[in-house]
Amino acid sequence: MSSSSARFISFEGIDGAGKSTHIEAVSARLRERGATVLNTREPGGTPLAETLRGLFLHEGMDHLTEALLVFAGRRDHLVKVIEPALAAGQTVVCDRFADASFAYQGHGRGMDLQVLATLEQWVLQGRQPDLTLWFDLPAEQAAQRRAAAREADRFEQQDLDFFNRVRAGYAARAAAAPQRFVRIDASGDIASVAAQVAAALEARGW
Amino acid sequence: MSSSSARFISFEGIDGAGKSTHIEAVSARLRERGATVLNTREPGGTPLAETLRGLFLHEGMDHLTEALLVFAGRRDHLVKVIEPALAAGQTVVCDRFADASFAYQGHGRGMDLQVLATLEQWVLQGRQPDLTLWFDLPAEQAAQRRAAAREADRFEQQDLDFFNRVRAGYAARAAAAPQRFVRIDASGDIASVAAQVAAALEARGW
Repeated sequence: MSSSSARFISFEGIDGAGKSTHIEAVSARLRERGATVLNTREPGGTPLAETLRGLFLHEGMDHLTEALLVFAGRRDHLVKVIEPALAAGQTVVCDRFADASFAYQGHGRGMDLQVLATLEQWVLQGRQPDLTLWFDLPAEQAAQRRAAAREADRFEQQDLDFFNRVRAGYAARAAAAPQRFVRIDASGDIASVAAQVAAALEARGW
Repeated sequence: MSSSSARFISFEGIDGAGKSTHIEAVSARLRERGATVLNTREPGGTPLAETLRGLFLHEGMDHLTEALLVFAGRRDHLVKVIEPALAAGQTVVCDRFADASFAYQGHGRGMDLQVLATLEQWVLQGRQPDLTLWFDLPAEQAAQRRAAAREADRFEQQDLDFFNRVRAGYAARAAAAPQRFVRIDASGDIASVAAQVAAALEARGW
């Protein structure tokens, strides 16, 4: 791919949706087709933002404090990593981005959506992923997968009501940006999810 | 003092203005008169905010990232320390507060003042110190004091133009809140500054 084909792809979904396997597969697919792929994640993606991630996931704090920390990390990530990579013609594959703040902090924890929208405008200055793959599945099923997988952090310990609100938050963001979002039914097995992801890329000629 | 006399006093001024000695003297004076005094500082004041202070003073970052971190720490400090202390009838003596963000990030570093004003409104919800003692002196004199005192952090290494802008920022904040601000001429010796500080407290019957 030439530098003019720089792309920004985000993966979103509640914990336990099974994004990780498919992030690797998408990155491998794009590399095979000539892209230089930068894999990154949020919260995190820079040393500063990873430090903030540690604070954010494990310390108790007010909702506004949390939102400010998340967007501070996002700004650092965008300025130091994402924008330079896109400017250099690389493809950026990011495990969660700003949509997650609206889903988790906004819909999940009740943080004022207008405050989040103002922070988004300041921090992103209009930058959004070119494609957001939203891994959607029922909160109950995601909880079963998480229970089987690993120890829970502060967010994963939330109850089903919380994850149902987060899921509704993703649905609202998807409805507001239908050109950018592709909903992936993540309730099936790996092969069925992989086929949907591949179809979303093929539809864009990627 | 009864719980109804809870007070919030902030000390402001450019680095090298000589606040520290007088913070101790004011705290001792108020304790002698029966107040329970909580001494705290910004950036910092809670474990989370002190961690952020360390990041903020020593790592390079975008101005917006910096402003979001400072206000995240301020929110944590306000919610966990300052508001509970005031509610319990204590007197809070704080080495720097929100005015410093306008002076340093805003006037000093050129951060959009409207963004800072929005952050202030979200984070403080109208809370301001009852009295702000602004230690004012020429930037050149402050630089000489700093040079004699200790190693410089990222902010203190800034040039005189920067500190002149910060000083002008404090002047603007003082002009906008004349009931709250008392300007202390910090160019003289300790005794002359102490007399001005004592007069400011006496004028309030403290």
